[in-house]
Amino acid sequence: MKIGIIGLGLIGGSMGLDLRAQGFPVLGVSRRAQTCQQAIELGVADQASMDLSLMTDADLIVLCTPLAVMESTLAALRPYLSSDAIVTDVGSVKEPVVRHLSPLWPNFVGAHPMAGTAESGIEAAQRDLFVGRPYVITPHSTTPPDAVQKVRDIAIALRAKVYECSPKAHDRAVAWISHLPVMISATLIAACMSEEKPEIIELAQQLASSGFRDTSRVGGGNPELGMMMARFNRTELLRSLSCYRDQLDLFIDDIKQENWLAIEAKLKNTQSARSFFVEKKD
Amino acid sequence: MKIGIIGLGLIGGSMGLDLRAQGFPVLGVSRRAQTCQQAIELGVADQASMDLSLMTDADLIVLCTPLAVMESTLAALRPYLSSDAIVTDVGSVKEPVVRHLSPLWPNFVGAHPMAGTAESGIEAAQRDLFVGRPYVITPHSTTPPDAVQKVRDIAIALRAKVYECSPKAHDRAVAWISHLPVMISATLIAACMSEEKPEIIELAQQLASSGFRDTSRVGGGNPELGMMMARFNRTELLRSLSCYRDQLDLFIDDIKQENWLAIEAKLKNTQSARSFFVEKKD
Repeated sequence: MKIGIIGLGLIGGSMGLDLRAQGFPVLGVSRRAQTCQQAIELGVADQASMDLSLMTDADLIVLCTPLAVMESTLAALRPYLSSDAIVTDVGSVKEPVVRHLSPLWPNFVGAHPMAGTAESGIEAAQRDLFVGRPYVITPHSTTPPDAVQKVRDIAIALRAKVYECSPKAHDRAVAWISHLPVMISATLIAACMSEEKPEIIELAQQLASSGFRDTSRVGGGNPELGMMMARFNRTELLRSLSCYRDQLDLFIDDIKQENWLAIEAKLKNTQSARSFFVEKKD
Repeated sequence: MKIGIIGLGLIGGSMGLDLRAQGFPVLGVSRRAQTCQQAIELGVADQASMDLSLMTDADLIVLCTPLAVMESTLAALRPYLSSDAIVTDVGSVKEPVVRHLSPLWPNFVGAHPMAGTAESGIEAAQRDLFVGRPYVITPHSTTPPDAVQKVRDIAIALRAKVYECSPKAHDRAVAWISHLPVMISATLIAACMSEEKPEIIELAQQLASSGFRDTSRVGGGNPELGMMMARFNRTELLRSLSCYRDQLDLFIDDIKQENWLAIEAKLKNTQSARSFFVEKKD
């Protein structure tokens, strides 16, 4: 099975490294000549080109482009694909991707390998990036089971943990645990900066420690990624933000009314609930 | 200068270890006989007792009890104190402590050494816990400068970074960077648990990764500590929560109105603002 990878950044590059090591021939496409050259030098791909016609020979193509250009990339790619080629993607939102790309290619299988580092670009590509990480495959009602199985085989070759669910379920779940945290964490920073007294901001900056650092980390991350989450997972993100706001109001009311025991009980619940999200991870 | 420490947990115990190592004689008081014995065995104190009369010889006494019993402890301690003894504390909220304890003892100096670990109790006491950490001293208008200087000397002996500000400024600053993060982080967990579909909660738990882990960490911490922050720093916490809620509404409105460029600009601001809170720390 020949693998095609379109978009040779951190994700596409890391995938190429591992799949070549497993014996799969890898063909890479990038918009930039320099990236194609690096792909060969770093061992990300056996062949690399700026021309989508390289994909004529590929059996399974992974779209590793930004969400905003997935659809146009598949449309441009289509004339070069062999009729039984399978196309999958790595986008972090699935409902709009599956909705727009499935009509373009019946053998399209939406997927989201949930791995990454703080770095980006082909220079950041690394072996074993996906080991033990979730690889969520999101077929819809008409996705051919054979195509799903081929994507599953790739995820297993990368030693990821494979999950399968609907695009909608994926988007709702990641809104809770990935996209909502970015927004509430960014809001923390924005709120601190809204303090009117400069001497208090300065003191707060001096006293900030691990609690602030951890809570603000994802809100201080790549602005483009955060904007893409909001744009492509808008419905589910707004839903989770609305629930969050309701819970925040309940907390504020408890503090206003000095319901200390209710607050302690709530914090006990959140303490024990958290363990179901973070235990046995990494 | 003989040091008295009342309350031999993580903070009091760690302070005793370092101050004894610096050559200060240390007298310790705990409510529990076993803790007194451990204090001697672990080298936290030269003498330890359940009886406050041990403090008769102390020149500087550090109250390391929970916030809720600071005032009653000082009231019980007062008959044993030599008239020029200095009393300080380690409470994480300063305005109510200074307001209630200063009238009981003119040589009282409020302070907050901002150090800790996830552990608690005398078994968790460790050397160098305060090295490089903020030690905030919060005198008020009538606090004797000599007494402030003595507390400053202790903080410097612990190799902490000394800051001085009003109790009110301290409480406002820590509301932003310590108490608000706990509440918004706990609210994240509560919001996730409010999801109605069990299969989505289960999927979210499986997919949760470092972003969720970091953002939820302080909200899943010791419930009693969170409740104490809310109770003793209620006014400043409510103020910061109200500002937070306003900022959250602005974010939600931008997403509703699909102001993607405004969201990206805001995330760029939070990314650069965060660096002023977290750079060159730890």
